Amino acid sequence: MEAMENYRLFLSLLLLALSLGFVSVVFVLRWVLHFREGLGWDGGAAEFNWHPLLIIIGFIFLQGIAIVVYRLPWTWKCSKLMMKFIHAGLNVLAFILAAISLVAVFDFHNTQNIPNMYSLHSWVGLTAVILYSLQIVLGIAIYLLPVSPVPLRAAFMPLHVYSGLFIFTSVIAAALMGITEKLIFGLKDPKYKDSPPEATFVNVLGLLISVFGGLILWIATRPSWKRPNEQLLRSQLNSEPTPSGISANTAMPERTDAETDSGKMSKM
Amino acid sequence: MEAMENYRLFLSLLLLALSLGFVSVVFVLRWVLHFREGLGWDGGAAEFNWHPLLIIIGFIFLQGIAIVVYRLPWTWKCSKLMMKFIHAGLNVLAFILAAISLVAVFDFHNTQNIPNMYSLHSWVGLTAVILYSLQIVLGIAIYLLPVSPVPLRAAFMPLHVYSGLFIFTSVIAAALMGITEKLIFGLKDPKYKDSPPEATFVNVLGLLISVFGGLILWIATRPSWKRPNEQLLRSQLNSEPTPSGISANTAMPERTDAETDSGKMSKM
Repeated sequence: MEAMENYRLFLSLLLLALSLGFVSVVFVLRWVLHFREGLGWDGGAAEFNWHPLLIIIGFIFLQGIAIVVYRLPWTWKCSKLMMKFIHAGLNVLAFILAAISLVAVFDFHNTQNIPNMYSLHSWVGLTAVILYSLQIVLGIAIYLLPVSPVPLRAAFMPLHVYSGLFIFTSVIAAALMGITEKLIFGLKDPKYKDSPPEATFVNVLGLLISVFGGLILWIATRPSWKRPNEQLLRSQLNSEPTPSGISANTAMPERTDAETDSGKMSKM
Repeated sequence: MEAMENYRLFLSLLLLALSLGFVSVVFVLRWVLHFREGLGWDGGAAEFNWHPLLIIIGFIFLQGIAIVVYRLPWTWKCSKLMMKFIHAGLNVLAFILAAISLVAVFDFHNTQNIPNMYSLHSWVGLTAVILYSLQIVLGIAIYLLPVSPVPLRAAFMPLHVYSGLFIFTSVIAAALMGITEKLIFGLKDPKYKDSPPEATFVNVLGLLISVFGGLILWIATRPSWKRPNEQLLRSQLNSEPTPSGISANTAMPERTDAETDSGKMSKM
C-alpha cells in the first residue's frame, strides 16, 4: 500500500519533470522562431540560435533523462548492461548536441567579430562541456569496458554520481547566465528592463529549466527510488510469476553489481 | 586507519571550502572597493555595492557553513540541541544579511529610476529568499520548538535537507547571473567583451563561489561524514575515556533523534 503510494509519487514527479522539459523545448523553439531570427547556418543570428536550442534539447533535457533512466521501475526487468548502454547513449547524444551548439556560437562570434570566451557564462559553460566529456570517457572506461577491476568500479561510483549531478547543475546555471546575456544584448528598444513580452517569456523559460533541474535532482537522490541490486532483482524474478511478455532471464547476470551497492551507500 | 584517512580527506576539503569562501569575500570586497565606487548608503552605486558584498558574505559563505556545521567531528560531543541553535542562528544571520542586501538594491533602483524585478536574476534571487524564509520558519517550528510530533520530524527531514541544498544552489546560480548583469551594465569603455582586468577578476570570483558551492554539496552529501546518531554517540562517550576538558554529559539527551536517522536514510 505504501509502496503503491511511493510509486505513484515517483510517476507524478517523473511526468511533471518530463512535461517541464518538453515545455522548455517548446519555449526555446518559440523564442528563436517567433521572437528571434529563426534558424540557419549563415554566421548570423539565425546560426547563433542553434546554441540555446541545442543546449536545452541536449545538454538539459536529454542529460536530465539520462540521469534518471535507471530509476524507471519498468526497466528493472531489463539487463543492467542494456540500461548502461541507454544511459551512456543518451549522454553521448547530449554531448554531440552540446558540441554542435558550441560550433554555432563560436562561428557566429568569429563572423561578427565578437570575442570568444570573455564571459563568466562561457567559462562555466565550457568547463561543464570539458568535465562532461571527461565524465563520459571515464564512465565508459570504468563501467562499460570489461577490463576495469571491481574495486575500482565501486570506489569510483560516488564520484561518478556526484560529478554527473554537479555537471548537470552547472549546465543549468550556465544556461541561466546565457539567457541573461542574450536578453540584455538582444533587446534594444524596448530594452530588457522595460519587460517586453520576449523578456517575460524567456524569464519563464529560465524558471522552467530550473524547476526541471530541481525535479531531476530530487528523483535521482531518493534512495527508495533506486534500481534494486541485481541479486535481489533476480531472486524476485525467479520467485514471482513472470509478467506477460517479459522473460525472466532478460535480467541477465551482470559482470558485477558492485557499483550499484556502492552507489546506494554514497548516493549524493 | 581507513577512518583516519577519511577524516583527513574531510578536513582537507573543509579547509579548502572555507579558504575558497574566505577568498570569495576578499574578492568581492576588492571588487566594490578597488574596481567600483566603494560602499555607502546614498541611493547611488556605493549603496548598490552592499548587494553583492552581503550576498556573498551571508547568503553564500555563512549559509554554506550552516549547511556543513553538523559534519564537524569536534562538535559531535556538543549536544544536538546546541548544534541546532548554531545551524539555525547562522541561517538567520545569513537571511538578515540577504534582506539588507535586497533593501540596498531596491533603494538603488528606486533612486536611479531603474525598474525592479524585471530580470531572471531578480526572479530566481527573490524566489530563493522567499523559499529560504519558509525553510527557516518551518525548520524552527518542526525541529526547535518542542511541540512537533516525532513522526513529522522524521517525515519532513528529507525535504528539509533537499530544499536546503536546492536553495543554496539557486542562490549561487542567481549570484552568477547577477555578476553577468553587473559586468555588462557596469563596464562601458572598455566593455565586458574587451576583457578589462575587472571582468577577468570578477569572472574568477564567479568560479570561486561555484567551486565553494560544489565542495559544500560534496561534504554535505557524504553519508560517512554525517554526525552519528545520538544513541551511538552516547554509548561511545560512556565507554571511552572522556577527552580532556569535555564532560561526557555535554552530549545531553535529546527529545528525539528521529530526524537524524531519517536524514541518513534519505540524504540527498
